[in-house]
Amino acid sequence: MLTLASDFGSPYPAAMRGVLCQRTDARLVDVAHDFPRQDVRAAAFWLRETLPYFPPATHLVVVDPGVGTDRSAIVVRTGEHALVGPNNGVLRPPARRLAGDGPIETYVIDETRLDPVEPTSGPSADADILGTDASGDGDGGPTSNTFHGRDVFAPAAAAVHDAPLSTLDDLAFLAPAESVVELELPTATVDAADDRAHGDVLVVDDFGNVITNVPGGYLDGRERIRANGDTVPVGETFAAVPVGDRLATVGSHGYVELDVNQGRGDDAFGLAAGDEVVLEPTSGR
Amino acid sequence: MLTLASDFGSPYPAAMRGVLCQRTDARLVDVAHDFPRQDVRAAAFWLRETLPYFPPATHLVVVDPGVGTDRSAIVVRTGEHALVGPNNGVLRPPARRLAGDGPIETYVIDETRLDPVEPTSGPSADADILGTDASGDGDGGPTSNTFHGRDVFAPAAAAVHDAPLSTLDDLAFLAPAESVVELELPTATVDAADDRAHGDVLVVDDFGNVITNVPGGYLDGRERIRANGDTVPVGETFAAVPVGDRLATVGSHGYVELDVNQGRGDDAFGLAAGDEVVLEPTSGR
Amino acid sequence: MLTLASDFGSPYPAAMRGVLCQRTDARLVDVAHDFPRQDVRAAAFWLRETLPYFPPATHLVVVDPGVGTDRSAIVVRTGEHALVGPNNGVLRPPARRLAGDGPIETYVIDETRLDPVEPTSGPSADADILGTDASGDGDGGPTSNTFHGRDVFAPAAAAVHDAPLSTLDDLAFLAPAESVVELELPTATVDAADDRAHGDVLVVDDFGNVITNVPGGYLDGRERIRANGDTVPVGETFAAVPVGDRLATVGSHGYVELDVNQGRGDDAFGLAAGDEVVLEPTSGR
Repeated sequence: MLTLASDFGSPYPAAMRGVLCQRTDARLVDVAHDFPRQDVRAAAFWLRETLPYFPPATHLVVVDPGVGTDRSAIVVRTGEHALVGPNNGVLRPPARRLAGDGPIETYVIDETRLDPVEPTSGPSADADILGTDASGDGDGGPTSNTFHGRDVFAPAAAAVHDAPLSTLDDLAFLAPAESVVELELPTATVDAADDRAHGDVLVVDDFGNVITNVPGGYLDGRERIRANGDTVPVGETFAAVPVGDRLATVGSHGYVELDVNQGRGDDAFGLAAGDEVVLEPTSGR
Repeated sequence: MLTLASDFGSPYPAAMRGVLCQRTDARLVDVAHDFPRQDVRAAAFWLRETLPYFPPATHLVVVDPGVGTDRSAIVVRTGEHALVGPNNGVLRPPARRLAGDGPIETYVIDETRLDPVEPTSGPSADADILGTDASGDGDGGPTSNTFHGRDVFAPAAAAVHDAPLSTLDDLAFLAPAESVVELELPTATVDAADDRAHGDVLVVDDFGNVITNVPGGYLDGRERIRANGDTVPVGETFAAVPVGDRLATVGSHGYVELDVNQGRGDDAFGLAAGDEVVLEPTSGR
Repeated sequence: MLTLASDFGSPYPAAMRGVLCQRTDARLVDVAHDFPRQDVRAAAFWLRETLPYFPPATHLVVVDPGVGTDRSAIVVRTGEHALVGPNNGVLRPPARRLAGDGPIETYVIDETRLDPVEPTSGPSADADILGTDASGDGDGGPTSNTFHGRDVFAPAAAAVHDAPLSTLDDLAFLAPAESVVELELPTATVDAADDRAHGDVLVVDDFGNVITNVPGGYLDGRERIRANGDTVPVGETFAAVPVGDRLATVGSHGYVELDVNQGRGDDAFGLAAGDEVVLEPTSGR
């Protein structure tokens, strides 16, 4: 199984699917292609929360604001999962979650040793275009500087999928990585003295639910909390409050969410990804 | 075959796909994940019009504004199709269409008897989060109160898919349902005296076509009709009128649609889902 | 393998998937369903740039502003690929790219000889609707005038997929096409005297990158160019300029693109699909 995730929107994922179908018989499953554009942190969060629900697979991830720079392309192996993507940190939070207490091995991709991606067609009537060196690097190769999803990550993922995970070292285009870009999602702190939680909005989901990094346990035993100054009820479900009302609840990722029953929490709380959140007990408890 | 439909947007469907891939080898086919949010009636319409084109399958449907309340989760079996989703009526119109004159059997899901959904990873470095009881119900179980698509409906659908349809009774987590929430899409009436049709806008599609519940036969033999007071031509195809002009036609679902050739009918007619529509003969005919 | 592409948005592609799954065991792969609405030229561009990355396949394409008119439905065969769609030119640019120097054969679909598409359900409780002649053409057949993707192209594509490509002539619903609607994407010209390129914006992608039809070779050896009067640097990658700055680069299709590093080129350059673009050397070079 090979999963695909990107911030490409459409139709760029199709070219990746084409290359993958050319190279491997792997079953393809889309995770998402509309991650917030060029937002490495948001993608890392969603992948960390989603990939562990999949059976062992190769996960192709392309959220890559540095495409074409000297950032390297890497393969991460942990347990029976492999992740393929840019070395910009996006693979680290999901890899750590998948690894648990197990090891994480990281390899760097040598693009020049990948079997080059070529369209399947014969010589083109538009040969003036196809014949240009799209890479602009004078070597006449087909690798573009702007679409490594198609030209680098897809062929690498196909090869990784088809290789035994125990022998990734044997793939000619892989070598152990010497440096890996780290990414840590921010964590919340709870002040024992005043029982205040200081956290961040990790992401806002498509429903408008504001997903913080405050562990859900903070809500245990509370009927109300103050969120950035506003008092809202704590509910086990959205339906604990009337339609249109705000609440704090424990979301499906285990964190405190600030939501509106059948409405948008981000609008109602005035919060966006990256914003700070302070939760505190209400005086009346 | 297992179809998926929801109002989740992205990336929540990916977690459902992961759970399904863990539990079954079924082929997965997406119906849609952008049904109008929390709009049970619109989803019921689209599913009624779409699912009958599929071969026998298990259909996973999650449009569930009451998630986490005491609304039950159900499995509906009719013919060689099974539908899995919330007991809020959304499964009824498609089930009736699939059933034709045949029987419909409904089972309620006992969530506590489902094999719990767990991420595939080892113990997490973020154990403080994963270790919390996300359900908040004190039993330490993994079922969230807000994501039954992942935690209840997906594992139930996988098990239903893999079971012979004739032995759903044997599945430990299913019991015959005692009460089923009904949902009837509104029907139009035609007044024989004045030949007026009184109907409703069922949905507006992505093209802006206004799909009413007036049977297409109403347009038989007419060259023009009045729609909420405006006279528009009747056309067999969009192209019966100039680009940008309004028309009434028989849509692909067999109902009268109010459309604009290569434009948006909802804007041109000032109509939205749920609005009333009165069609009447033009005096001149 | 059978790929699907359309401008349908959602959920209409699901009905096509259902029909395809009824008729063939082909693997289904989505190219895109959000091509710019009823924009034959944009779809032709994206298909030309994307389909050649797929292995031999049948490609179902429905971008069809003339649905229900007398435009014919066609099947195009070139090499080991087949394309199925409306005879409005949309299939021509991808077919020519797939063909290279090889031949292209075109067949017209006789809709009346297709095995009619029927829902799989039994007689409907809503028989008053299903029983109407949705086509309005008095023959009682099920073919709609507005959804040929479901009723014509999908069944045709399934049959084409399952037939040996060398015997398409044997399919009863196909006959050699006598006239084929041509579509040529505009090409750019470079004036040798003043080294100016006169071109067009072919499409704007989801990132906002402005994709012109000026061959990438125009940028060879240049550090800056003037684009519609504004001087911008030439970069091999987006990251050649600071975040938020404009640049000209060679895109993944081999053409000059006008982009913004991590921003939208269409907004920054004030350009949309179809606009004219003049590129010229800067005086200082």
